[in-house]
Amino acid sequence: MTPPLAGPPVDLRSDTVTRPDARMRRAMADAEVGDDVLDGDPTLRALEEEVARLLSAEDALWVPSGSMGNLIALCVRLERGDRFLAPDRAHVLDQEVGTAAWLAGGMPRTLPWSAGPGRPRPDDVTRAVGRGGPYFALRDRLLCLENTHNAAGGTVTPPAEHRRLVAAAHTAGLLVHLDGARLWNAAVALGVPVAELAEGADSVQVCLSKGLGAPVGSVLAGGAAFVREARRVRKMLGGGIRQGGVLGAAGLVALGRVDRLAEDHENARLLAAGLAERGWKTDVPQTNIVLLPVDDPAGTVALLAGRGVRTVPTDDAVRMITHHDVTRRDILRAVDAFPTPG
Amino acid sequence: MTPPLAGPPVDLRSDTVTRPDARMRRAMADAEVGDDVLDGDPTLRALEEEVARLLSAEDALWVPSGSMGNLIALCVRLERGDRFLAPDRAHVLDQEVGTAAWLAGGMPRTLPWSAGPGRPRPDDVTRAVGRGGPYFALRDRLLCLENTHNAAGGTVTPPAEHRRLVAAAHTAGLLVHLDGARLWNAAVALGVPVAELAEGADSVQVCLSKGLGAPVGSVLAGGAAFVREARRVRKMLGGGIRQGGVLGAAGLVALGRVDRLAEDHENARLLAAGLAERGWKTDVPQTNIVLLPVDDPAGTVALLAGRGVRTVPTDDAVRMITHHDVTRRDILRAVDAFPTPG
Amino acid sequence: MTPPLAGPPVDLRSDTVTRPDARMRRAMADAEVGDDVLDGDPTLRALEEEVARLLSAEDALWVPSGSMGNLIALCVRLERGDRFLAPDRAHVLDQEVGTAAWLAGGMPRTLPWSAGPGRPRPDDVTRAVGRGGPYFALRDRLLCLENTHNAAGGTVTPPAEHRRLVAAAHTAGLLVHLDGARLWNAAVALGVPVAELAEGADSVQVCLSKGLGAPVGSVLAGGAAFVREARRVRKMLGGGIRQGGVLGAAGLVALGRVDRLAEDHENARLLAAGLAERGWKTDVPQTNIVLLPVDDPAGTVALLAGRGVRTVPTDDAVRMITHHDVTRRDILRAVDAFPTPG
Amino acid sequence: MTPPLAGPPVDLRSDTVTRPDARMRRAMADAEVGDDVLDGDPTLRALEEEVARLLSAEDALWVPSGSMGNLIALCVRLERGDRFLAPDRAHVLDQEVGTAAWLAGGMPRTLPWSAGPGRPRPDDVTRAVGRGGPYFALRDRLLCLENTHNAAGGTVTPPAEHRRLVAAAHTAGLLVHLDGARLWNAAVALGVPVAELAEGADSVQVCLSKGLGAPVGSVLAGGAAFVREARRVRKMLGGGIRQGGVLGAAGLVALGRVDRLAEDHENARLLAAGLAERGWKTDVPQTNIVLLPVDDPAGTVALLAGRGVRTVPTDDAVRMITHHDVTRRDILRAVDAFPTPG
Repeated sequence: MTPPLAGPPVDLRSDTVTRPDARMRRAMADAEVGDDVLDGDPTLRALEEEVARLLSAEDALWVPSGSMGNLIALCVRLERGDRFLAPDRAHVLDQEVGTAAWLAGGMPRTLPWSAGPGRPRPDDVTRAVGRGGPYFALRDRLLCLENTHNAAGGTVTPPAEHRRLVAAAHTAGLLVHLDGARLWNAAVALGVPVAELAEGADSVQVCLSKGLGAPVGSVLAGGAAFVREARRVRKMLGGGIRQGGVLGAAGLVALGRVDRLAEDHENARLLAAGLAERGWKTDVPQTNIVLLPVDDPAGTVALLAGRGVRTVPTDDAVRMITHHDVTRRDILRAVDAFPTPG
Repeated sequence: MTPPLAGPPVDLRSDTVTRPDARMRRAMADAEVGDDVLDGDPTLRALEEEVARLLSAEDALWVPSGSMGNLIALCVRLERGDRFLAPDRAHVLDQEVGTAAWLAGGMPRTLPWSAGPGRPRPDDVTRAVGRGGPYFALRDRLLCLENTHNAAGGTVTPPAEHRRLVAAAHTAGLLVHLDGARLWNAAVALGVPVAELAEGADSVQVCLSKGLGAPVGSVLAGGAAFVREARRVRKMLGGGIRQGGVLGAAGLVALGRVDRLAEDHENARLLAAGLAERGWKTDVPQTNIVLLPVDDPAGTVALLAGRGVRTVPTDDAVRMITHHDVTRRDILRAVDAFPTPG
Repeated sequence: MTPPLAGPPVDLRSDTVTRPDARMRRAMADAEVGDDVLDGDPTLRALEEEVARLLSAEDALWVPSGSMGNLIALCVRLERGDRFLAPDRAHVLDQEVGTAAWLAGGMPRTLPWSAGPGRPRPDDVTRAVGRGGPYFALRDRLLCLENTHNAAGGTVTPPAEHRRLVAAAHTAGLLVHLDGARLWNAAVALGVPVAELAEGADSVQVCLSKGLGAPVGSVLAGGAAFVREARRVRKMLGGGIRQGGVLGAAGLVALGRVDRLAEDHENARLLAAGLAERGWKTDVPQTNIVLLPVDDPAGTVALLAGRGVRTVPTDDAVRMITHHDVTRRDILRAVDAFPTPG
Repeated sequence: MTPPLAGPPVDLRSDTVTRPDARMRRAMADAEVGDDVLDGDPTLRALEEEVARLLSAEDALWVPSGSMGNLIALCVRLERGDRFLAPDRAHVLDQEVGTAAWLAGGMPRTLPWSAGPGRPRPDDVTRAVGRGGPYFALRDRLLCLENTHNAAGGTVTPPAEHRRLVAAAHTAGLLVHLDGARLWNAAVALGVPVAELAEGADSVQVCLSKGLGAPVGSVLAGGAAFVREARRVRKMLGGGIRQGGVLGAAGLVALGRVDRLAEDHENARLLAAGLAERGWKTDVPQTNIVLLPVDDPAGTVALLAGRGVRTVPTDDAVRMITHHDVTRRDILRAVDAFPTPG
């Protein structure tokens, strides 16, 4: 029987729990600011331009959350009742409280994981669009990709596969939105520039508040006309802020920390390996998410919490995410907290 | 090489193409009417009461179409962003132009056909509801069943299976809506009263304008409070009509014709058997829909049209529906019009 | 003290209460029909073409109700949060259960009655559009006119004034929708062709089920592209019907009865004159609606109902509408039923 | 002819342009934070509790903007097509891009300014609700008040009048939402606690980013159940943030600065008096907003901008707002920049 761990709890619930460190806080305190709703905040603008540059996009827009970034993209692209495609268990389907339907009026069509966990194949796209034919009057408009795919366990779609999916969508007359909340993780795992993973997408959302450690914020990038309309929808949703530079400054610091995600990925592999050694079956994580299938997710999460390890239950697994505020030693402590399987 | 058929085209596109016969037209011409928006149309009311009686429901409401009946049920049951479950390829998902999302604000979750074509299993329901857990804040509210399931080829869910699905939904805290556009066909195929197939459902929509041959109209049945709110939503959608008795009278005549659906089912089996004899692979139809998988649906439909047989392409099949205005002889002519497979 | 009237009640609640007569019923019974959702119903199509011709519009679409016709026009013209202008107390604002906001996502701006009851002036339009300036990001898109204006008491906008309103809207970048539920009444009152009152409007809705006496239905007319999209929205709302020709035939008969509206107008004037003689203050009605301001609308309506005269309360008046099924003698009986004012 | 002013521009466009000072920035840098989406950020929570205390509300919720606060209140209170009442030119009507209609599905009814600029009378509420009667099926649900009323020129509704409006709404079966973006200004102008101006309201939104000078954020207060549902809607809109404490800390500093609003009000009166001396007609401002009616708002704004004074055009006036970053000397420079009227 494992005794409760010494020391503060190990928080593996999400990479969103990271707290800004001293340097990031100083940048926030020193930020040059303006009124972003009226005529622009210079620091927020610098952040938007830097993200646009990194993604090779024409323009970009700061948004308070990744969910709002995805929601704005759906609102801009879809009209009442239009259909969009997304891989099974995508964040826009399961984790944004139904806003795709309510706000964007979008009817989803789920794509299977034919190419691997979280990854549909190009011909899944082609087939889904053809379905039903003009007889049924549904308009397919948008393909939503997600890289890394959160609910599939942080799985990575490599550049060539991404390009083929985009091509299939464009051929079928669809635009493409990329939910890149953790696109930084995919880029680091693959050792490619993040722009390569966004190639051809008509809009991309990337988060600053997950592995990169900014306290608040995401950025939505795309063509100039798209971003203009996105700015209007952000205002409609009440997502326009005033002296946003205090958050923008944290975002700029965060952008300098992409490379350290490699450490999170190593810690995730360490965690999975430790669990495997204890007799648990789990896949080798591709990025910073470990999904451990268990019979009683809620019960296991409660047991671990009692032992100082915080995790999140999914419907058939315990989810653990490594991040900036979790050390190699924390990982070993977490492994120790686990019961024996069965 | 088959020569074009002699005689008028055989129309197998849908059982909605039936034309009212002399008796039905006479009933329409003689109908007693009132202003249904103001204080009720007596004939429409008689129709609503008769359908409520047949379905063992507290009350019922005439609606101009099955799509509006389903849409009203979703609007009454769902709030912004609530999730509903429906079997893959359900009419509410693929054939109602995305209104579930746009108008009802409903986010669908597709159920697999684990129990047979068009038929999910009770534990598919249970699992779908649990998915994600309270962490994700989605509210699952409604299970939409469809009997017979159109896109699966008119497949029938028998009473015991229906009851188990309803029980699974209720246990999980969901209400149940039954899209019974062709519930009459299911009842005739199974030899059970239609009420048995609606048991436990919190709302049911049945069509009068398909196999039963009324020119226009469906009926939405449920509890008294549900129907009151449904009446209000019908007004909001612009579906309230004035002297509706002219259509109600046709509906009452149609209700007397449920038994003759057996003939349509026999014709469907005759059609499938004829095609099998010519070398086509097709399942034995359970009701009045024949789905013939072909490589080139659009091409085959065009070829048949040139030979006087009208059909509808789906994404991988030719769809044919038998009905009141199609005779046994028409079926034989249709079989003759088919090319040899391959 | 007036004794209860002899004979059946006089129903002045609305001109929607008219019942089809023998000729109209025969036309319905004999109508040629088709499946209007699949490939068109010939009689419905003939009706649509005739209304388009009468309104000098490119095309037209049958809809089950005037409310749905207005709603479809708003849905086609407005995107999320767009603003539309309408005269105070317009039907689209007060009498369609909020659907302009819910379904069309339209934010109304009310126009005052500067030119007379129910009638704004062109510079009301100009000013409303300018309001706020680009700073506030609202998009004004549509002007909704209503002729005759129901809640103002069936008031008529003459052609020259209509054209100036349309011109002001077009100059300001707005499109124009005309709610012409009773446009026939306006045309007859003014002695001009109905097309003259629709001139320049980008869409027009006219009812067949009010003074013209058809049991069900309205027609929405406009440009070819508008009508194509309107057909799609009608399907989304569940307003597409199958063998609609039975209703279309009644509509065609109704179109032949425009001229008899003059009789309704005469009866309305007779009613108002009779009430004036009894000491009530009321305006001379311009068409078939009489609004009698009273202190206790609900009480007065109840009292009249007890004396065999059915009317409708508004917030400050009793509303009475004359129609095909009300005779000169009924009017005299209605006048007799009224109490002395005060 | 006035020469361009020496020194940096005087920015009177809005009180939202204020920049956080050193103390506020330090508080942000030192803030204790947590993950507010997962299990709460302690500083944000302290801010929410403090605002709830100040408003005598059960609970409160931080939101990124006043627009989102109002929008969430409308979403929680209204169902599809429900009607809400608001004074003419209210922020929720004209300045939130139509979201009340699009997102909340709310149909507005405008109330006149019977009690003074921006202020309806209780019987305007009573009458608006009665309008039409049950015949029209509209549901009136909510009264939205605004104190101070922005577009009316920062006008103040005193406590007794506020209570009578709330009572009229409650009697008519409506709930009350108070848009208190500048409720602090009203409280300071009247010399009453802010809670007195929120008495009886079922929800209240107050801004921290206007006169109080926080860079970002508003707070929405109300009953415990309301705030629970508001939290859910905030998540749906993508308004949930992670380590919000950095913004919460600024909000807590801002709450300590309510009293200095008196200075802004004095500056507004100084500005109006200076303009009056130069021959302009303008009302004595009640708080920090000066509306100067001019013939050519856009032209005057441009002319002033050329002289180093930044203002905002409305449809018939130049709007100027005093705030923390505008000194008495700036006001005198602004007066000097004005041309002579006419």
